[in-house]
Amino acid sequence: MHALHANPSQSIRHSLLGEIKVPVFHDVEQAAQRIRDHVRRTPLLRSPVLDEIAGARVWLKAENLQITGSFKARGAFNALLSMSPDQRSRGVIAYSTGNHGQAIAWAAKQLNTKATIVMPSDAPKNKILGALKQGAEVRQYDRRHESREAIGMQILEETGGTLIPPGDHPDVLAGQGTVILEAIADLQRETEEGLDNFITPCGGGGLAAGSSLVLKALSPSTGIFAVEPGDFDDTVRSLASGRRESNPAGSQSICDALQAVTPAELPYEINRHALTGAVAVSDEEVAAAIRFALEQLHVLVEPGGCVALAAVLAGKLALNGGNTVLVLSGGNIDMPLLETMLR
Amino acid sequence: MHALHANPSQSIRHSLLGEIKVPVFHDVEQAAQRIRDHVRRTPLLRSPVLDEIAGARVWLKAENLQITGSFKARGAFNALLSMSPDQRSRGVIAYSTGNHGQAIAWAAKQLNTKATIVMPSDAPKNKILGALKQGAEVRQYDRRHESREAIGMQILEETGGTLIPPGDHPDVLAGQGTVILEAIADLQRETEEGLDNFITPCGGGGLAAGSSLVLKALSPSTGIFAVEPGDFDDTVRSLASGRRESNPAGSQSICDALQAVTPAELPYEINRHALTGAVAVSDEEVAAAIRFALEQLHVLVEPGGCVALAAVLAGKLALNGGNTVLVLSGGNIDMPLLETMLR
Repeated sequence: MHALHANPSQSIRHSLLGEIKVPVFHDVEQAAQRIRDHVRRTPLLRSPVLDEIAGARVWLKAENLQITGSFKARGAFNALLSMSPDQRSRGVIAYSTGNHGQAIAWAAKQLNTKATIVMPSDAPKNKILGALKQGAEVRQYDRRHESREAIGMQILEETGGTLIPPGDHPDVLAGQGTVILEAIADLQRETEEGLDNFITPCGGGGLAAGSSLVLKALSPSTGIFAVEPGDFDDTVRSLASGRRESNPAGSQSICDALQAVTPAELPYEINRHALTGAVAVSDEEVAAAIRFALEQLHVLVEPGGCVALAAVLAGKLALNGGNTVLVLSGGNIDMPLLETMLR
Repeated sequence: MHALHANPSQSIRHSLLGEIKVPVFHDVEQAAQRIRDHVRRTPLLRSPVLDEIAGARVWLKAENLQITGSFKARGAFNALLSMSPDQRSRGVIAYSTGNHGQAIAWAAKQLNTKATIVMPSDAPKNKILGALKQGAEVRQYDRRHESREAIGMQILEETGGTLIPPGDHPDVLAGQGTVILEAIADLQRETEEGLDNFITPCGGGGLAAGSSLVLKALSPSTGIFAVEPGDFDDTVRSLASGRRESNPAGSQSICDALQAVTPAELPYEINRHALTGAVAVSDEEVAAAIRFALEQLHVLVEPGGCVALAAVLAGKLALNGGNTVLVLSGGNIDMPLLETMLR
C-alpha cells in the first residue's frame, strides 16, 4: 500500500508550478516562531462521552476556533511572513474553496498586502463575504468549466504578484504542521503516555502532510490517518493504487472545504510515505458529527472540518484503545445549512 | 447606589443555613490548586468583529467548553474536595436549575460520592438527563409551588449528607473565582495593559461574587458588571435599592440558568460592595448573541451563558474602549431550542 520507511524527495517538479522544495520538520519549528503572534493557540477539547464511544482517550484540536475560523490561517501567515517585503508589496493571489482564501485575505490585510482570491462561484456565501470584508479582491469562477490554477496563473502574470496555493507550497505546509506541534506540547501537560493515533480531515492533503513532518520527527510510532468525504476519496484510492487518483466530475458532498479533485502534488509526496491509512465518511455521518460537536463539545464545526470526528463516531478507524488526537479543522458554516443539519 | 470602599463582613447569618464564612481571595487561590486536575483550563476567545462592535478589545472566557458544560464544575469540585473523606462518604445534595446540579453530579461521580440533585420539573431535558447519566439521584419539584431550599433541607435530614447550594457556600464561590484568575493569567500573555472591564452573567450571583474576590485583589480598578435577563433583574434592582429585591412570580426568560428569585445571600454580601453596575438584556438580545457566538466564534453558548455577550452586542455597557473580559458561562442547550433560535 505504501513504503513505510522510504523518505520523500527533497524537492518535486510540479506539473504547473515547476520545482518546489519539500518542507521538513525544521521548517515547521520555524513556522511556529514566525506565526505565533498572529494566530491563536487553540485548545485541546475533551469529551467523556466521545472517549466512551471511541474506547480510547481522544483530544480534539479545535482549529474551528482559530482566527479566520480554520487552521488555514497558520499556513497563510507563514507563507506571507516568509516573503520579502518587496515581494509582499506586489500582492498575493490564492485560489481556494474558501478557508484558505479567507485566511490569505486576513493575513494579507494584517500585513498590509494586497490579496486577490479566486473562488468557485458556488462557495458558501459567508466565505466569499469573509474574503471581501478583509478588503481582498474576489475573482469567482465556474467549478465545472474553469481551472482555478489557470486563472491564478493568469492573474499572476498580470500583477507580478505571488501565487499562494492551498497545498502546493512548502511554507503553507510548514504552517499547517504547527497544529500538531502545539497539540503535542499541550498533550504532554495532560499525560506522560505517547500519542498512538492522529486523525485529520483531508482535502488536498496539506494538513495531513504538514502534520506528518512533525509526527515523523517527534512521535514516529503514531499512526496517521486521513479522512475524506465519501465522493471525494481520492487519497483513499491513491494510497491503494500508489498514484494520484482523481474524483469523478460531478461528485457531491456537504464538505465544501474538502472538494479537491485529486491530491495536491507536494502534500502527496509526503503523505504517500507518511500516512498509515485513509478512510471516507458519508454526508450523514458528517451531519451526526456536527450535532455531536454542538451537544457534547459546544463548538460549531463545518462539514469538512468534522470528518475526522465523524470517522471516530462511526467506528471507521481502529484506535485500539490508544491515545488519539483528531483535528476539528474549521468552523465556517452558513447558518441556513446548520439549521437543516439540526433537523 | 453602593459603598465602593466598604468591605464585606467576615461571615453572614444566612436565613436558612445559619452562619456562613465570606470567602476571600486566598480561598480562590487555594481552590485553583485544589481543582486544577479536575477541570479544564478554558481558552480566551477573540473576535475581530466583536472588537469592532464593542469599540474595545474583548476576550471571551469560554466556560461553555468547561467539563459538564459550565463554570459550575469549578465550584462543585472545590466544595467536594474541601470536605473530609468521612463527610463525603455520607453524600451530597444540590438544588439547581441544572448546571450546578450537573456539575455536582459529575464531581461526585469522579470522587466516588453519592449525589442527590433537586431540580425543577421544567428544567431542560438534557440537564436532567445529564445528572441521571452521572449516576445521581434526581428529585424533581414544581418551581411554582415548592421551595427547593426546603426540599434540600429535608433530604439532608434524611441522609445525613451535606447540602451544597449553588451560591450560598464559600467553597463554591471560591471555585467560581478561578474563572477570572485563569483569565487574568492568560491575558498577561496577550497584553501588558490592564483589565478595564469584567462582565459576567448573573443568576444568584455566585460567579460575580467569586470573580470580585479576585479582581479586588489583583486588579482593583477593573469595573465589574453583572448581566441578568430582563424579567430576572433582581440584582439590578437590588443594587439600586440597597436591599435584596425579588422577581415577581411568573417571570419568564429563555435563560433557564439565570432564573433566581432573588440574589443569593452570601454572593450578595460580596456583590453589593464589589459590583460597578448591573444591566438586563431581552430574550431577543440573547438569541442574537447566541447566533453571533455560533457564526463569529464557532462556539455554542446557552441562553443564560450568553447574556454578558448580549449586553456588549446591544451596547448596554459603556466599555469606554477599555480592555474587557466577558464570561460565556455555559453551553448546555437543547437542540430543538437551538433550532428555533437559528430561525
